[in-house]
Amino acid sequence: MLKGIAASDGIAIGEAFVYKKAEIKAEKHIVDDPIREEQRFDDALDTARKQLEDIYEQVKSEMGDDKAEIFETHLFILNDPEFLGSVRHKIQKEKLNAEYALMSSAEELAEIFKNMGNEYMSQRADDILDVSKRVLSILTGNKNFSLSEISNQCIIVAHDLAPSDTAQLNRKKVSGIITETGGRTSHSAIIARSMEIPAVLGVDSATSSIKNGDFLIVDGYEGIVHINPEEAILKKYEAKREKDLENKRLLLRYRDVESITLDGKKVEINANAGGIEDIEQILKFGPDGIGLYRTEFLYMAEDKLPTEEEQFRVYKTVLEKMDGKPVIIRTLDIGGDKNLPALNIEAEVNPFLGYRAIRLCLDRIDIFKTQLRALLRASAYGNLKVMFPMITNIHELRKAKDILEECKAELKNEGLKFDENLEVGIMIEVPSAALISDILAKEADFFSIGTNDLMQYTLAVDRMNQKVSYLYDFFDPAVLRLIKMTIDNAHKMRKHVGMCGEMAGYLPLIPVLLGMGLDEFSMNPSSIISVRRLIADLKYEDCKLLADNVLQMTSSDEIKNYISSIEIPVFKK
Amino acid sequence: MLKGIAASDGIAIGEAFVYKKAEIKAEKHIVDDPIREEQRFDDALDTARKQLEDIYEQVKSEMGDDKAEIFETHLFILNDPEFLGSVRHKIQKEKLNAEYALMSSAEELAEIFKNMGNEYMSQRADDILDVSKRVLSILTGNKNFSLSEISNQCIIVAHDLAPSDTAQLNRKKVSGIITETGGRTSHSAIIARSMEIPAVLGVDSATSSIKNGDFLIVDGYEGIVHINPEEAILKKYEAKREKDLENKRLLLRYRDVESITLDGKKVEINANAGGIEDIEQILKFGPDGIGLYRTEFLYMAEDKLPTEEEQFRVYKTVLEKMDGKPVIIRTLDIGGDKNLPALNIEAEVNPFLGYRAIRLCLDRIDIFKTQLRALLRASAYGNLKVMFPMITNIHELRKAKDILEECKAELKNEGLKFDENLEVGIMIEVPSAALISDILAKEADFFSIGTNDLMQYTLAVDRMNQKVSYLYDFFDPAVLRLIKMTIDNAHKMRKHVGMCGEMAGYLPLIPVLLGMGLDEFSMNPSSIISVRRLIADLKYEDCKLLADNVLQMTSSDEIKNYISSIEIPVFKK
Repeated sequence: MLKGIAASDGIAIGEAFVYKKAEIKAEKHIVDDPIREEQRFDDALDTARKQLEDIYEQVKSEMGDDKAEIFETHLFILNDPEFLGSVRHKIQKEKLNAEYALMSSAEELAEIFKNMGNEYMSQRADDILDVSKRVLSILTGNKNFSLSEISNQCIIVAHDLAPSDTAQLNRKKVSGIITETGGRTSHSAIIARSMEIPAVLGVDSATSSIKNGDFLIVDGYEGIVHINPEEAILKKYEAKREKDLENKRLLLRYRDVESITLDGKKVEINANAGGIEDIEQILKFGPDGIGLYRTEFLYMAEDKLPTEEEQFRVYKTVLEKMDGKPVIIRTLDIGGDKNLPALNIEAEVNPFLGYRAIRLCLDRIDIFKTQLRALLRASAYGNLKVMFPMITNIHELRKAKDILEECKAELKNEGLKFDENLEVGIMIEVPSAALISDILAKEADFFSIGTNDLMQYTLAVDRMNQKVSYLYDFFDPAVLRLIKMTIDNAHKMRKHVGMCGEMAGYLPLIPVLLGMGLDEFSMNPSSIISVRRLIADLKYEDCKLLADNVLQMTSSDEIKNYISSIEIPVFKK
Repeated sequence: MLKGIAASDGIAIGEAFVYKKAEIKAEKHIVDDPIREEQRFDDALDTARKQLEDIYEQVKSEMGDDKAEIFETHLFILNDPEFLGSVRHKIQKEKLNAEYALMSSAEELAEIFKNMGNEYMSQRADDILDVSKRVLSILTGNKNFSLSEISNQCIIVAHDLAPSDTAQLNRKKVSGIITETGGRTSHSAIIARSMEIPAVLGVDSATSSIKNGDFLIVDGYEGIVHINPEEAILKKYEAKREKDLENKRLLLRYRDVESITLDGKKVEINANAGGIEDIEQILKFGPDGIGLYRTEFLYMAEDKLPTEEEQFRVYKTVLEKMDGKPVIIRTLDIGGDKNLPALNIEAEVNPFLGYRAIRLCLDRIDIFKTQLRALLRASAYGNLKVMFPMITNIHELRKAKDILEECKAELKNEGLKFDENLEVGIMIEVPSAALISDILAKEADFFSIGTNDLMQYTLAVDRMNQKVSYLYDFFDPAVLRLIKMTIDNAHKMRKHVGMCGEMAGYLPLIPVLLGMGLDEFSMNPSSIISVRRLIADLKYEDCKLLADNVLQMTSSDEIKNYISSIEIPVFKK
């Protein structure tokens, strides 16, 4: 058994293919005919470019733009005048052979990029060496074995995998990856996760301990590799792999499908996102849209406020990636409990009851307008809805909408396009907002119930405070009544009501919320499949009765016991 | 004009009476016949005792037990064997004259008491000197002028007033007090305030600057004395005094009377008390009872928890002083925002949403039971009701009531008496409690709406936080709806609903709350008269319509404007 870093979830079981790249050395010579030598370099370049173009097209069509990108970068390097100029200079002026001129220039340039102390540039250094080795092998006549040529099912064991290696991996043939280098955030790890290939990286001396044809188990959850394991271990891992496959089948069945009850009631199942890096994971689970896109990360990353342009680019990218599916972006929801260097908010005795979210934005209209202008401009590129957090009274909603109108007028004057019919909704998370939801429903386009805060305020409990968090109870009748009140008031005005707090993904309450008439459930992406699966097993008419009964009950214990006694197949798990 | 310390509110206008006590010296002699000297001392003691007994009876009947107490203390000193023994020893053994033996013993004893470093003992030192001077003046044949002999209306100007001086003051003759010594907490100040005589103390050289018969203005609000003032100043002060008198007439008219609208709807007007020292002030305004008696002061005074016995004595005294009027005592309502050495509560990020009030008591059952036992025992001595703060759900109320029943069983076993029918109510101050008030009304005997916290949680605002306190708005429609919901739910179960937050004393909302059906308003004592006066000018039927209209409105601005446009005579002031 070998130990390494758990880099990509999953269990792989199969035979080892030990992948050792021949290390070609570029010997230094003086050449007689630099002109012919330069011609030899140009020919190798052309061959390399052609290879890369072919690989690019193949990878793009088989594995998507993201994976193909690396080969575009390689092509770009092989067309870089500065890099090529340096090689040519060494051939022409120093009369060096093409192999040595190429690799010494590549190493010099890579060194410069590496020393920039920035991860992006450091990756470019790896790319320069990677593509230069391709040209070198063409120059020396060594044909490098390509991982795309693997024809039997196997688990790859390598010292290291270059980005160009992993990009060509055939997911159908490669069931697991083991390398001696790399960690959770290395390129190989990222690719392995995106291709859903179980991987254990950083396994010392893997290529010497493992021989071609060894029978392996790769445990990508725990970072463990078993070599020629006993029967009992194998059985355990086979069961584990079976469970994974079952989950994948469910994923395939429930992703990108409508959520609909047995008796035909349709609801939206959306995802919550904390930033742009969540989108890939979200798309994997195929929700109907994004029910809550948080924008705080934009303000927390640096010690200056994000510009309109920076925000616009992020919002536009999110909308484009979501490709027409609705995306509800929440305006800045931050307060004195977060240390924000750019905002310099004073410390408060009770930050949850303080200067935060829309209160801050209505006080700092400069910040608010920058975000609203960026959102409006992005609205031209997808299905955007804007949502204000922590609305307490109708004055705040009116003021926020007035500022949005001001921004629209400005953009119109500047000739910038935006969605004229942009929907504007609010979070229902302050008890007062739920209590006057009939009033707010007349002036907001939709609601999203933020149960986390709504519960904290309604029950006067900071859920992070361990001494009282027992009061933060999803089954609390007061909270359920407020939710029902909010849904009914919205529906009276024909407005859509979603929920984006944790309760929306909590299986035992899904039937109750559905029965109350909730239109949309927005949750952590990893909950989407189980919620969709549950809903497909429910009858809306049963859920309505269930909800009516729950709303008559006097205590959370009573509600909890009642719900757990109900016979809904999935729901009992 | 002279400046001093404003020690008792009010304006006095009148002639000065400069009160100078003759300073009698006790010269030291050796006497020939110590036996006769001791007889002379005993005779003087008898005369002094007789004087004190007469004064005691007179003051007690004319001014009450409190004022007479000082003369009991003086009598007690003149019967103290240790003190008298010391005087006799000096006469018998050292052959000293009675005057010198008396005063030197008095000074020695007073010195000891003063050095105990405790205010109570220090006051006893003053008493020893005060009563000894009375005996000295009898011994020397000097008849001391008594302030009780003043026959014309006057303002007293003195270097100092001994407790025995002030106790004999005739409130009808003495309209103001000026002294050269003392401050706001001195004995003279306390007596002046309790007798409602305007007083300015600590006025340097008052007895030399002011002559008998000077025309004076005493401004007890600002601590200013005008000597023979100009006409304009006099006019201004006469107007001010007229206003004071008007307020006093109102006080006389509205204290200790029922609060009843023009069309016969009766409500209770109660006072809030923060401790036992508030009772005197409360009795002055004659409310129907105490709607909120806070017990936190008992826990904050010292660095140990109050014992059952200590608490019992305080609660019993309060109930006895309130003489059968209802007193609602709230159990400990404290949390992590107060530094309580005896409890050692950890600091919290959001103390208002933390470990406090009933949450703390249900966790620290030892503390809770001590208080409940003390309350139960006190319940035998008056009209007590017990109230639990910060109830969030029905589980908490049930648990608290179970613990109370446990205490009752214990007391029964111990043969201690208590009110078997003690009413047990709850504060409605957490939004969830208002939202399930129908459920809570079945198991609580009464409600008291704590608007301060209810507003803070419902609106998610810490009212002490200046950046957001603008949201803490008495006219907020969500809060008013929760109040109405609570009142209606209580009345459906025929339960009494009071209010003890600041809103209950806020004049513009009194008609609305009355119209919603609130049964009891409990407030700062100083608001009682103006609220009673307003209610006497209202019609309940009008108030019901007003409340119905208010509850239809969408914003606090709309409600505020509507209420201020209504024609209710007093209410517009």
